[in-house]
Amino acid sequence: MEYNKNVWVDILSIGDELLIGQTVNTNATWLGAQCNQHGLRVRRVISIPDQQDAILREIETSMTEAQVTLVTGGLGPTKDDITKKTIAHYFQDVLVRDIETQERVNRFFAQRNLPVLASNDGQSMVPSKCQVLPNLQGTAPGMWFEKNGHVLVSMPGVPYEMKGIMESFVWDKIQNAFSLPNIIHRTIMTIGVGESFLAEKLAPFEEEIAQAEIALAYLPSPGCVKLRLSSYGNWDNEGAQQKMDIFVGKMHQLIGEYIFSNTETSIYQVIAQFCRQSNKTLSIAESCTGGALQSILTQEAQASDYFKGGITSYWTEVKTSILNVHESTIEKNNVVSEAVAKEMAENCRKLFHTDFAIATTGYAGPTSNDPNIPVGTICIAVSNGETTFSSTLRLGTNRVRNIQNACLQAANLLRANYFNN
Amino acid sequence: MEYNKNVWVDILSIGDELLIGQTVNTNATWLGAQCNQHGLRVRRVISIPDQQDAILREIETSMTEAQVTLVTGGLGPTKDDITKKTIAHYFQDVLVRDIETQERVNRFFAQRNLPVLASNDGQSMVPSKCQVLPNLQGTAPGMWFEKNGHVLVSMPGVPYEMKGIMESFVWDKIQNAFSLPNIIHRTIMTIGVGESFLAEKLAPFEEEIAQAEIALAYLPSPGCVKLRLSSYGNWDNEGAQQKMDIFVGKMHQLIGEYIFSNTETSIYQVIAQFCRQSNKTLSIAESCTGGALQSILTQEAQASDYFKGGITSYWTEVKTSILNVHESTIEKNNVVSEAVAKEMAENCRKLFHTDFAIATTGYAGPTSNDPNIPVGTICIAVSNGETTFSSTLRLGTNRVRNIQNACLQAANLLRANYFNN
Repeated sequence: MEYNKNVWVDILSIGDELLIGQTVNTNATWLGAQCNQHGLRVRRVISIPDQQDAILREIETSMTEAQVTLVTGGLGPTKDDITKKTIAHYFQDVLVRDIETQERVNRFFAQRNLPVLASNDGQSMVPSKCQVLPNLQGTAPGMWFEKNGHVLVSMPGVPYEMKGIMESFVWDKIQNAFSLPNIIHRTIMTIGVGESFLAEKLAPFEEEIAQAEIALAYLPSPGCVKLRLSSYGNWDNEGAQQKMDIFVGKMHQLIGEYIFSNTETSIYQVIAQFCRQSNKTLSIAESCTGGALQSILTQEAQASDYFKGGITSYWTEVKTSILNVHESTIEKNNVVSEAVAKEMAENCRKLFHTDFAIATTGYAGPTSNDPNIPVGTICIAVSNGETTFSSTLRLGTNRVRNIQNACLQAANLLRANYFNN
Repeated sequence: MEYNKNVWVDILSIGDELLIGQTVNTNATWLGAQCNQHGLRVRRVISIPDQQDAILREIETSMTEAQVTLVTGGLGPTKDDITKKTIAHYFQDVLVRDIETQERVNRFFAQRNLPVLASNDGQSMVPSKCQVLPNLQGTAPGMWFEKNGHVLVSMPGVPYEMKGIMESFVWDKIQNAFSLPNIIHRTIMTIGVGESFLAEKLAPFEEEIAQAEIALAYLPSPGCVKLRLSSYGNWDNEGAQQKMDIFVGKMHQLIGEYIFSNTETSIYQVIAQFCRQSNKTLSIAESCTGGALQSILTQEAQASDYFKGGITSYWTEVKTSILNVHESTIEKNNVVSEAVAKEMAENCRKLFHTDFAIATTGYAGPTSNDPNIPVGTICIAVSNGETTFSSTLRLGTNRVRNIQNACLQAANLLRANYFNN
């Protein structure tokens, strides 16, 4: 079965706030990543102001050169937002009332006990030639246009409204309109090793998968490298899935010690999931990471299922008085040492009555307080009461990066030592 | 003296990683905000891949339509990065060795005990027609071109390298090249009140400053609104400064209770600065914010000057056993109550032997554990041992937003009650 390898997409982001640096264009990043996963190729991302001339010009260019134009922004109820009028003008169209949207907008405000203003009522006026894509999260609907085999989709700029419309309606419609390849992805998460090291280990493997028409992408982020296997256009779904399983198995043979998950997830989600499933509790004693590890874990809902609490023992005095680390351990080994990290983890576990504890102590930077210990030296430890494991990280001088990295490695130390894969 | 009101800028961001959603284009956001502050107007932000045709086309358009083209990315040593060759091609130029850059690159690697590879050595080859803008943070230099009154600047995509080149060289050169207005800005930071509320309070004030040719911009971020007064083109610097002082004073009369700083700073930096200057120490007891407040404060270097440590008492058991909150207080008032927040702050201060303590307890969402207490209810308290103040926030259902907002409000509660402005 034939599929379309080169469906080109332009992303058009509309809004003055993008040009004066008030808003980071995360919509374009999300759309770019999603297009890439769906087998569409993004040609350009263009941010322009809420001005008719600028919008018209970019739409005209995109409609003749790309196959898909994804427009975000400029659909709010205020007078600045002129995207809808401009698109109607481009398609030589008029605005008509969409009853379903009107009812949805009315319900939206009724639920919030707010009056429907004239500007909000206007949101259910849409170009007659578009297919309305309901906005289940807000008021301004998405709009789908087709002309000469080209698709233009206009969506609100509010990220979760835009994502909702894309996920509920747009991908399916694009898939149908352009016979996109049937893509199978597998994501392997690695930690604690660089992209170039993995690339070297996987060089022969990459040649092997290339022959099976499977591509491997390295997607690095600080401390982690996400590896993505992609098989394009294979319509024997079951056979392709089995082939992918075999290749994932081979990756485990080659780089298994760095893999922490076979699905797209964070090391923190792995920790949360394991603790929940095995009914284990966790506490954390942080020094140089300053509460960051606790904060990351508690950003997810229901973290209290397993996380009982923790302590930030920033000053040495706090380590000895509240965490009961022996002064002699500190004097003999230095406050930045695996011995201190171990005592912190062990005592934290006892203090909070948890199954596991994690501890960190180090110099996050940009300077070290101790001439004998270079900046970026961070000791981490984990304990389950029976055994305690520790490790020393040698990181750089960037404080925020070092904190992020130490949190990742500390979480991974827990996983690597106590979770049965 | 005449100045140029409409110097149009195009921002051209080059790199495949921007189009497949691997990298968020924060460079464009920073450049947009900086252009806006310097009196330049950004016309378009365009992200394109590392492809000669695409780069050439956008440069040609920009060189004829805008006055300034700021190009970032595509200057790395790898073969994918073809920006430099393409720009040289556009200017019909050849690459020549820049000795100063070569020496800087050699020093850069020597300091890191690394060999200079051929690809790195190539970074000191630059188009003969450009002015080299030294990269003091990395290896690829910036390049300044002029043609028919138009300026094109090419810089590396690494954010801190790009910012270094902009700040050290580019703004001054643009100011000279285009007679930009002499802009005076004053920034007023407010917290705990919405943009529309401030706009209503300041409506007559806005009319008054408009007559003095001063503009007021509202720059909202979650929990805070930054207000910026801008006076353009006034070359009587001292007189303009005095006029601005008077207007800032008037803003304090109108909305003083919401202002936490007359300079661009965060509430956390205000806390850090005050504690340092007055030699005060701080500890923090967090429940629903889960370590986020401690983490934010310790992201800044030298936080240990004033921050001794803290506790995340996530489970009620931790509040009673380690923080010694009375069980009767919890039973009588609920664990999410100002009474509990107050005891947490008071006991935390004693436990950590600090001058001040901050505490939080609430339901961050997306759900509440208690049918009587709606999600988004967060109680905060601060204590200095003599007095304790508390407050109850009624926030939404977005967990991450609620945590951020509670941290801001808790920090502000400390400032509002104990810092003498």
